[in-house]
Amino acid sequence: MSVTIERQADGSYLFSSDNPFKLVSGEYLNALDLVYETWGTLAEDKSNAVVVHHALSVGSHVTSSSENPDAGWWEEMVGAGKAIDTDKYFVICINNLGSCFGSSGPTSINLETGKKYNASFPEITIADMVNSQILLLEHLGIKQLYAVVGNSMGAMLSIAWAIEYPNSLQRAMLSCTAYKAYPANIANRNIQQSAIRIDPAWQNGNYESCSSLEGFKLARKLGLYTYRNSAEWNRRFNSHKDKTAEDGEIVKYMDYNAEKFVKTFDANSYLTITTAMDTFDVTQGYVSNSEAFSKIKAKVLVISEKFDILFTPQQQQELYAGLEEAGVNCHYISHHSQYGHDAFLVETEKFGGYIRDFLNDEYFN
Amino acid sequence: MSVTIERQADGSYLFSSDNPFKLVSGEYLNALDLVYETWGTLAEDKSNAVVVHHALSVGSHVTSSSENPDAGWWEEMVGAGKAIDTDKYFVICINNLGSCFGSSGPTSINLETGKKYNASFPEITIADMVNSQILLLEHLGIKQLYAVVGNSMGAMLSIAWAIEYPNSLQRAMLSCTAYKAYPANIANRNIQQSAIRIDPAWQNGNYESCSSLEGFKLARKLGLYTYRNSAEWNRRFNSHKDKTAEDGEIVKYMDYNAEKFVKTFDANSYLTITTAMDTFDVTQGYVSNSEAFSKIKAKVLVISEKFDILFTPQQQQELYAGLEEAGVNCHYISHHSQYGHDAFLVETEKFGGYIRDFLNDEYFN
Repeated sequence: MSVTIERQADGSYLFSSDNPFKLVSGEYLNALDLVYETWGTLAEDKSNAVVVHHALSVGSHVTSSSENPDAGWWEEMVGAGKAIDTDKYFVICINNLGSCFGSSGPTSINLETGKKYNASFPEITIADMVNSQILLLEHLGIKQLYAVVGNSMGAMLSIAWAIEYPNSLQRAMLSCTAYKAYPANIANRNIQQSAIRIDPAWQNGNYESCSSLEGFKLARKLGLYTYRNSAEWNRRFNSHKDKTAEDGEIVKYMDYNAEKFVKTFDANSYLTITTAMDTFDVTQGYVSNSEAFSKIKAKVLVISEKFDILFTPQQQQELYAGLEEAGVNCHYISHHSQYGHDAFLVETEKFGGYIRDFLNDEYFN
Repeated sequence: MSVTIERQADGSYLFSSDNPFKLVSGEYLNALDLVYETWGTLAEDKSNAVVVHHALSVGSHVTSSSENPDAGWWEEMVGAGKAIDTDKYFVICINNLGSCFGSSGPTSINLETGKKYNASFPEITIADMVNSQILLLEHLGIKQLYAVVGNSMGAMLSIAWAIEYPNSLQRAMLSCTAYKAYPANIANRNIQQSAIRIDPAWQNGNYESCSSLEGFKLARKLGLYTYRNSAEWNRRFNSHKDKTAEDGEIVKYMDYNAEKFVKTFDANSYLTITTAMDTFDVTQGYVSNSEAFSKIKAKVLVISEKFDILFTPQQQQELYAGLEEAGVNCHYISHHSQYGHDAFLVETEKFGGYIRDFLNDEYFN
């Protein structure tokens, strides 16, 4: 067995283990790659590490760095003096297992066949994603995190982590997420998955290039639709009077977004990850929600967004009520904006305030 | 020119005019068919007619009759002693132009070619639908309606009618609708339209049978997703823990609904009607919303549903505010249920109460 960590040209790190990685299903990956990035400096006692759990469609590049000056997906939130302050914290973001930005997933080579996995990549779970990250942190010698910070699907990893590895973290920030797959979300994701699969160009996952997958573009458009609130669509196209939808700005905007997305994201990864979301239930294996939640030792912050139609405020309220009932030290913030699910990406000043206060323990006595 | 009205086996009437029907676009249909059903008795002074404007996916069969005992789509709402009381009112429901339940639309024969229009049916507007219904009512000698009652897309016809034919109606009930196409709705419908069109079996609208159109089934599933609120999905699948989405109840439920839908509805009609919704703006041609709304002489009831993610309460509030500002005699009801957009079909007792009171003028002094 050998584990290596290699610095890459863009400043990210590639953790590679040739030890078979056992999945919750009992299957094995014959090797494990995880790409991650870090910002700030790990304290000598290793007590200042913060793991950011990223959402479905992005990777480990949370914010820019000297090696990679490209703006990250949460550029305003992480950095020197920012809410997740890299002068204080050692921030780590790991590309999720199953994704397509360097970590093991459908676009990886299957060592047994010498070919890409494509659709033969095994079905994985959110727990598998967490377990792989625990391996990496063990390798880095980090026994306990100052915090995990997760949004949307990322926060599914955060809460699973808090329950399954309760001693390994002090705080968990969960925003716009769910502790289990809800029927409406399963329904929505199924429509997206079907859109990918009914496209003849998909070819059972052995497509030439994602750029030509019209079904995948449709899936992205539906994703986009759910990330925004009606008011946000209004703001964007306020003065718009569409003569025909075909040539309208709204359709162009969706087309542009979908074309851009399929150039960077992989359709098989999309299927792998959304299926992991479908089967997610952090209380599975426990006799009650309360039994599951009561394992948590971390302080927890739950944030909902009023007009989030994807992970509705009701889902967050149910999570918070469950945590409270189980005696978890937790705090709830109901955020109001016009942005819907994507508010955490857009209203970074307000979310930054919440997170800064949380990391400073200001919500707790 | 000849106009005929023929009673059909199921009790519905077929209004047929061989007079070319001029569309707002300037194009003509070389003939016009409208299928409609009636319940109750027209008063001698013809003052008790109520037109029910149906939504996207249904037809003229609002409620059962002795000729057609099948349950209608608003069975609980229309009938002797019910909210829309057929002992008092002469209720008419006309299948919308462009639809596929007997009125002129893509499944009709184009008299010029002797073949079905299919995708060559001209682009129509909500105003065209209204204009066609006005022709029918003129033919029936009904000069003024007691009320129009519209839900969802049906209420787009109702409000257009109230503005363009202000003397022809006394009351307009508008529920879960919009006075113009909103960007989020255009986006959502475009995804559905694209799903139909990317399917190779669609064949530019010359498909063999809708039953084999996987893209059309997807479009229906997305429609269904938006008609329900997250809480309603929870209620339906509450105890459900899905092992994989592929074999889950949720997916089966959507598949069942989609299979059923494509057996009765036509994909070209779906494209025709949803495009008419995309281009809808009842204020178009007026210098301001207020100028348009101030043409209304009818009393208006606006109803919103709290968790409607399709036609959001904000859209209804904007409509109501516009009507009030324009001096329209109007009343607003904010309905709260767990059902989302479909509440008007499900919570018929409550909606029945609202409509009964409205028809009795109880909201007005």
